[in-house]
Amino acid sequence: MLARELSTPALTVDLDVLEKNLQRGAELWRRQGVGLRPHTKTHKTVEIARLQLAHGAVGLTVAKVGEAEVLARAGLDDILVAYPIMGEEKLRRLARLARARRLLISLDSETAAQELSRAAAAQNATLGVLVEFDAGAHRCGLEPGPALVALAKAIEKLPGLKFRGLMSFFGNVWGTPEQRRAEAEHVAGRVARGLEAFRAERMPVEIVSGGSTPSAEFAHLIPGLTEIRPGTYVYNDLNTYYQGACGLEDCAVRVVTTVVSTAVTGRAIIDAGSKTFSSDLLGSGPKSGYGYVVEAPDASLIKLNEEHGHLDITQSKHNFRVGEVVTIIPNHVCATVNMHDEILTLRQGEAVGCWKIAARGKVR
Amino acid sequence: MLARELSTPALTVDLDVLEKNLQRGAELWRRQGVGLRPHTKTHKTVEIARLQLAHGAVGLTVAKVGEAEVLARAGLDDILVAYPIMGEEKLRRLARLARARRLLISLDSETAAQELSRAAAAQNATLGVLVEFDAGAHRCGLEPGPALVALAKAIEKLPGLKFRGLMSFFGNVWGTPEQRRAEAEHVAGRVARGLEAFRAERMPVEIVSGGSTPSAEFAHLIPGLTEIRPGTYVYNDLNTYYQGACGLEDCAVRVVTTVVSTAVTGRAIIDAGSKTFSSDLLGSGPKSGYGYVVEAPDASLIKLNEEHGHLDITQSKHNFRVGEVVTIIPNHVCATVNMHDEILTLRQGEAVGCWKIAARGKVR
Repeated sequence: MLARELSTPALTVDLDVLEKNLQRGAELWRRQGVGLRPHTKTHKTVEIARLQLAHGAVGLTVAKVGEAEVLARAGLDDILVAYPIMGEEKLRRLARLARARRLLISLDSETAAQELSRAAAAQNATLGVLVEFDAGAHRCGLEPGPALVALAKAIEKLPGLKFRGLMSFFGNVWGTPEQRRAEAEHVAGRVARGLEAFRAERMPVEIVSGGSTPSAEFAHLIPGLTEIRPGTYVYNDLNTYYQGACGLEDCAVRVVTTVVSTAVTGRAIIDAGSKTFSSDLLGSGPKSGYGYVVEAPDASLIKLNEEHGHLDITQSKHNFRVGEVVTIIPNHVCATVNMHDEILTLRQGEAVGCWKIAARGKVR
Repeated sequence: MLARELSTPALTVDLDVLEKNLQRGAELWRRQGVGLRPHTKTHKTVEIARLQLAHGAVGLTVAKVGEAEVLARAGLDDILVAYPIMGEEKLRRLARLARARRLLISLDSETAAQELSRAAAAQNATLGVLVEFDAGAHRCGLEPGPALVALAKAIEKLPGLKFRGLMSFFGNVWGTPEQRRAEAEHVAGRVARGLEAFRAERMPVEIVSGGSTPSAEFAHLIPGLTEIRPGTYVYNDLNTYYQGACGLEDCAVRVVTTVVSTAVTGRAIIDAGSKTFSSDLLGSGPKSGYGYVVEAPDASLIKLNEEHGHLDITQSKHNFRVGEVVTIIPNHVCATVNMHDEILTLRQGEAVGCWKIAARGKVR
């Protein structure tokens, strides 16, 4: 069946583009000398996690215990839970998992470390811990400096835990290539400050993990970085495109939709709204709406109701008709994928299979 | 288990509040003399659909064929698919369903009617059709007037279809009570114009269905309306609250979260982001962020990453601590519920059960 014959809305991935993205990333980061531990939040799909490992990833990243469980059940190993997990029930599951798989976890407080230690000790498990520092995104993470060393030392004293290194999210590296390069240099300074504090105490730091797709091409500008955690690079999206980090042809995920109404002048309504795309707007670049209309780039997806996408067609030369198939590249592919239970795989425009988005909905 | 002991993030519904909302709505619309055909998109839960029918609903509303299938499988009947379904595969399923259940469907084009008729005829099924008109929301729907009659007549000639009446979405009724009342009067004019066109042709209109929660309290201002399709009223949310259509105590759904980091000055990070709440901002009222913090209303949920909620605590008197439980009332409850596979039921702060959000993810 051809993509345009699919029942809509259909979340699709072009396997040729996916494989090119996987390979291009793997080569770039091998050249840059950093280990790749991709964040699986983008795809939440076991099949793609396997492909990433086959392309040389040193391990995998998740944000939730439930996501780690999905990967572990599929036989995958060496998983970083890049999130300060709190709460007895989740920590119990995490410790149980650590008895069967190599696990790393990040945190930035003694409270989180103590709770984790209690859970690990109760099950005779050992978890590697990365101390999170703030590289400029101002989300989680301690100020790079002595506070990091103090927490690392506290961790070393807690049963069931082993200090393995540092972690940060580089969410501040965003925008044009020039903006991103400048911000990556700022990050480099903060990484250096963090590492310096450990050197002063002669305390070894085995892993230094940095995050995000927009920062990943500048990994070589950040001395000391041993691992990176890009997520979006496997699929790419309009956010990646408008930052100049990929071409439109590198966007592997497209949503196939159908025009269901043209009754209102100047509008074409497609059968995909915020429950298909999410409501995420572009984080940078031209604010042109909720997605890119492949068949008619001069039409704008200006508004999303839950199941209605509003195309403004007043500036479009395309003649929109009810029943017509229209393909959309989403703004934020991680959020879009998270709306769906499955993704249809395409090869040269032909539907060839279907992958379960197995870790979707694992909110805990 | 108490709500604050739940593993987080946890989507919860207070059953006492839910029942009060169900009852209050049922009484209001009985008094106003309109039939209630609630839109199940808000909850996507069979248990609540049953409660709505028990409270006197004349039927149910969905947007997707897959949602109708979930309700039908649970034994429920008389379902309006308030959406112009297009595409062979979905229409085939819809026609199959129509052999076992009473179905209504809305549409606004001859193309959609012809496709539906073809599918219905192929399976010897009959579907009731509501012609959609634009009452001012400018989404779907024909201009009220002769165009409606022309489509109704075309439908009457098509095998497998029966013209049953008119439908519209009252999305333009939004804002303060005064704004909503004025807009409801505008809607009333457009409904009258639509009905007048049918009277002129001596063509009976059995059903006139109007939509949305913010418009529902003004149903009595719209002569000719026979049914309404509110969705949000069962749960309510900040959008409803800021429009003056409910109190905070009427918001039945709350998300229980945990503070996971306070490392960055002025911030507390909770373990719930856009993959827990959706990215929906408020459609009206104070733009105070992504939700209401019950324990500390002076803190603002100013930003959501996928799994991180950023609380701006610079103006808050509350002393946020890592591990602390924080409860959030979401902006848009339909979008939030749609992120989750299940909702935990509470009775006086105690978790008493769990409902499957069975129609979630039925994108087709």
